Amino acid sequence: MSVHPSEARWRDALEASLNAFLDAHPVGSADALYDPIHYLMSLGGKRIRPVLALAACEAEGGSMDQAMPAAMAVELFHNFTLMHDDIMDEAPLRRGRPTVHMKWSENAAILSGDVMYTLALMALEGAPAEALADVLRMFNVTAREVCEGQQSDMAFETRDDVTVEEYVGMIRLKTSVLLAASAAMGARSAGASQARVEAWYRYGLNVGLAFQIQDDYLDTFGASGATGKQVGGDILADKKTLLWLTTQASEEGRKALEPWVGLTPASGTDQGEAKVAAVRAAMVAAGADQEAQRRMADHVNEAMAALDALGLTPETAEWYAGLAKHVISRSH
Amino acid sequence: MSVHPSEARWRDALEASLNAFLDAHPVGSADALYDPIHYLMSLGGKRIRPVLALAACEAEGGSMDQAMPAAMAVELFHNFTLMHDDIMDEAPLRRGRPTVHMKWSENAAILSGDVMYTLALMALEGAPAEALADVLRMFNVTAREVCEGQQSDMAFETRDDVTVEEYVGMIRLKTSVLLAASAAMGARSAGASQARVEAWYRYGLNVGLAFQIQDDYLDTFGASGATGKQVGGDILADKKTLLWLTTQASEEGRKALEPWVGLTPASGTDQGEAKVAAVRAAMVAAGADQEAQRRMADHVNEAMAALDALGLTPETAEWYAGLAKHVISRSH
Repeated sequence: MSVHPSEARWRDALEASLNAFLDAHPVGSADALYDPIHYLMSLGGKRIRPVLALAACEAEGGSMDQAMPAAMAVELFHNFTLMHDDIMDEAPLRRGRPTVHMKWSENAAILSGDVMYTLALMALEGAPAEALADVLRMFNVTAREVCEGQQSDMAFETRDDVTVEEYVGMIRLKTSVLLAASAAMGARSAGASQARVEAWYRYGLNVGLAFQIQDDYLDTFGASGATGKQVGGDILADKKTLLWLTTQASEEGRKALEPWVGLTPASGTDQGEAKVAAVRAAMVAAGADQEAQRRMADHVNEAMAALDALGLTPETAEWYAGLAKHVISRSH
Repeated sequence: MSVHPSEARWRDALEASLNAFLDAHPVGSADALYDPIHYLMSLGGKRIRPVLALAACEAEGGSMDQAMPAAMAVELFHNFTLMHDDIMDEAPLRRGRPTVHMKWSENAAILSGDVMYTLALMALEGAPAEALADVLRMFNVTAREVCEGQQSDMAFETRDDVTVEEYVGMIRLKTSVLLAASAAMGARSAGASQARVEAWYRYGLNVGLAFQIQDDYLDTFGASGATGKQVGGDILADKKTLLWLTTQASEEGRKALEPWVGLTPASGTDQGEAKVAAVRAAMVAAGADQEAQRRMADHVNEAMAALDALGLTPETAEWYAGLAKHVISRSH
């Protein structure tokens, strides 16, 4: 990834702000409520959403501080969704460590998740007064869409007629809109015009789409050590990823997948490893891995077009272009 | 309950606004996400929080419309907390009907609850521009406190050293602050001064405290048909209510409770009914029921003092006084 001269400054400021904000909680004696939040946030993560908010704000001529409330809000919200999604998906690991509902309990993960969402909103309160109503509106509509995306994602698991378009619509909601809103809220915090805010949204949306396709790609073709997740988890859960749907769209692919559909063996068992290996081979034979790469390239191109429309200086544009391209080349 | 001349108007406008707002969702094809929300909202409820917001707004010289966003937000938020609390408490019934996690699934109740919280915030977006930052701040701090209250409530179930003060602190957070914030947000939506907003908060807080003590009282001494909940549910779950804690504070009470502590038979079983009957008798013998009544009266008096400080006209003040007093006399 091409490192922006300011990237370390953004990341350091973000971590300091998040730590100071989280240190103000627990309030009173409610440690048990806040411990899971500190735990999940301490597991790290790429922080791509808040960095995008801070970066877009500075690209629009604002100071980083103006977008810090939005940056903290999107990162806290993102981690809240992880805490709840992990319950729903019965995920044992997150970033290579036990998920909150495994380490504590489902009730703890529900309630700490709820208050984590509240903390995201409390962070957002600090947005510039003239931008508050707009960033709140963007944040809310995005939160609604993210929930709708998770709903579709779960519903797809038990359907056998999911189309590629439905799939792309789902990942748009579940993942991409939050990256889009991060960039847009950052720009809006700097006082950017509606047209420029929308261009930042398009940039973030397409980076997000490319990002999610790569995320699914890595879940199937990545290495466990690099991602900190079970590799093959999507295959074991019969997730209708782009890889799966593309494979199923061909006659040969459908035949190769058929014996495995509906079987959900546990990871690490012989049957589990057999399923992952067989489905992977079917995907490669159907060219699904290459189709995923092609789609990612399309979204990167659309992100670049949005960048062009913003007319940034070449120096400023370079990092955003690098970020979009990095999404494809990353290994975790 | 003394009916305010405007109460029907407030309630009708609230239901119409809520229905119009909810009809705008589902968005797209995410019916499964929104069905539980429509279901829970259709079960009714007293709508005391939004009515308080509308009433306080008009008492401060505002028009009802100014407080409608806050009114919808507090009612949606309240029902969101019910949806999640019912999962955590493993409650089978809510208002005499199956809870969302029983009727659908735990995952549905988690995710529909999350998006219901988002809908509350989307409703709040409509607050008067000059009041938005303040009502958002009040809403957020209240949401955080409500989560902290639920955390304490669950933690108390497995502790045997809960004090009466801790209990009152818990119900203050879990229930009372939302009534307090409803009144305060309604007043703030009308443009009321900080001092007057705080007086409305004190009024709502004490009505809320009296309300929750009565709620616990009815759970033990009420009639199932009137409340729509299992009577004795708190006793069966070893909940440390004011009734329980007051009983345990006396030597005789402690002895009477001792054989039942840690036993959590199911409702309707012989052992369950025996436990409810025995614990009820011990509470009456210890005077816990009368102590609860005395505490409710104290909070009603504090609510009246806050009303006095507001210096409303006698006609305006009458309804608020009646509302506070009604809390004690209600049977459901």
